[in-house]
Amino acid sequence: MDRSKALAQKIAEKIMERAQRSQRPIPVGISNRHVHLSQKHFEDLFGKGTQPRKLKSVVQPGYYACYETVTLAGPKGKISDVRLIAPARPKTQVEISKTDAMVLGIKPPVRDSGKLEGSSPVRLVGPAGEVDIAEGCILAKRHIHFAPEEAKEFGIQNGESVRVRAGTGGDRETVFEQVLCRVSGEFKLEFHLDTDEANACMVKNGDLVHIV
Amino acid sequence: MDRSKALAQKIAEKIMERAQRSQRPIPVGISNRHVHLSQKHFEDLFGKGTQPRKLKSVVQPGYYACYETVTLAGPKGKISDVRLIAPARPKTQVEISKTDAMVLGIKPPVRDSGKLEGSSPVRLVGPAGEVDIAEGCILAKRHIHFAPEEAKEFGIQNGESVRVRAGTGGDRETVFEQVLCRVSGEFKLEFHLDTDEANACMVKNGDLVHIV
Repeated sequence: MDRSKALAQKIAEKIMERAQRSQRPIPVGISNRHVHLSQKHFEDLFGKGTQPRKLKSVVQPGYYACYETVTLAGPKGKISDVRLIAPARPKTQVEISKTDAMVLGIKPPVRDSGKLEGSSPVRLVGPAGEVDIAEGCILAKRHIHFAPEEAKEFGIQNGESVRVRAGTGGDRETVFEQVLCRVSGEFKLEFHLDTDEANACMVKNGDLVHIV
Repeated sequence: MDRSKALAQKIAEKIMERAQRSQRPIPVGISNRHVHLSQKHFEDLFGKGTQPRKLKSVVQPGYYACYETVTLAGPKGKISDVRLIAPARPKTQVEISKTDAMVLGIKPPVRDSGKLEGSSPVRLVGPAGEVDIAEGCILAKRHIHFAPEEAKEFGIQNGESVRVRAGTGGDRETVFEQVLCRVSGEFKLEFHLDTDEANACMVKNGDLVHIV
């Protein structure tokens, strides 16, 4: 009898946790194709002594979109006007959609930001030069950013996987499985997905989704 | 007691139905952007007295992809090499992805094939002329084609909505809600989705998905 009571208690807690998580909406942030550059690659592409010029802030604190853009070149095609996100990172990272990858003729893996080992090579072309990266091009794995206090409210641990329902009630309602939760003092609540994923469920920036 | 027995019986039947439905895999068919043309529009674009030349059959019986392609033009951009699917239809229908729509600068609605009232205008350009359609451009609503005997095996009625799990075990596992089931003697079992949706769940032609 005690065992079944303990089980009932656990089930009740799980139900409560799910109810709590699914209650609070999470705003959508759609990642269009973009590049993060190392300081060296920035200088190779835009010239020594130049600085990235801020166009606008992005939702995640500290990052900003720049006036600077590059062209990506692959074996099959090119994509121009690919926005630089600053400041510089230790390693150059190129984030594109699968649709973009097919235009370029490359097959980047789905990866978490920063996990670049064995990811795709691609050529970057800027006004001052070209850079061939041996790896660094990825399809970003969809994820949610949480500030620590937000994660606490949701009952979420860093690294946890959740399911997210998007486009509820629309023509393309979709449930995304295995959405990575990332918790950091530098983050702000936002569900990140790429343009293919956003188009598949017909959401736009700022739309609200729920953990289910 | 009889009432609860009847309920238990109903629940058991529902469980059995779901188990049966989810057991059998359904192959994926990805719809790249394409056009169906009326006979008149075909002649306007490719010239009077010409005939569409078959490139290859598609999975759905009776239809074939042609050597002929058109260019689509919208207020913001153009997309060339858009494949013609023959034979002619009573009304011209242009099926594109949301990604394509953003390139063209138009906002087509999500629609079932053939339901074109109030859908988007677009310009079609061929080697012999141009056609401006006042409506006919859509984002195709994802759907499953069933032959009648296949529908019977699944326990599916024409017009029913189901949920489909795709990319199971992969990096982008996804559940598509409200997938329309279409049953016809002219159909063959296939889950149709567009390139955005296929990229969002990382499936390719012939991959298998399941009703859940």
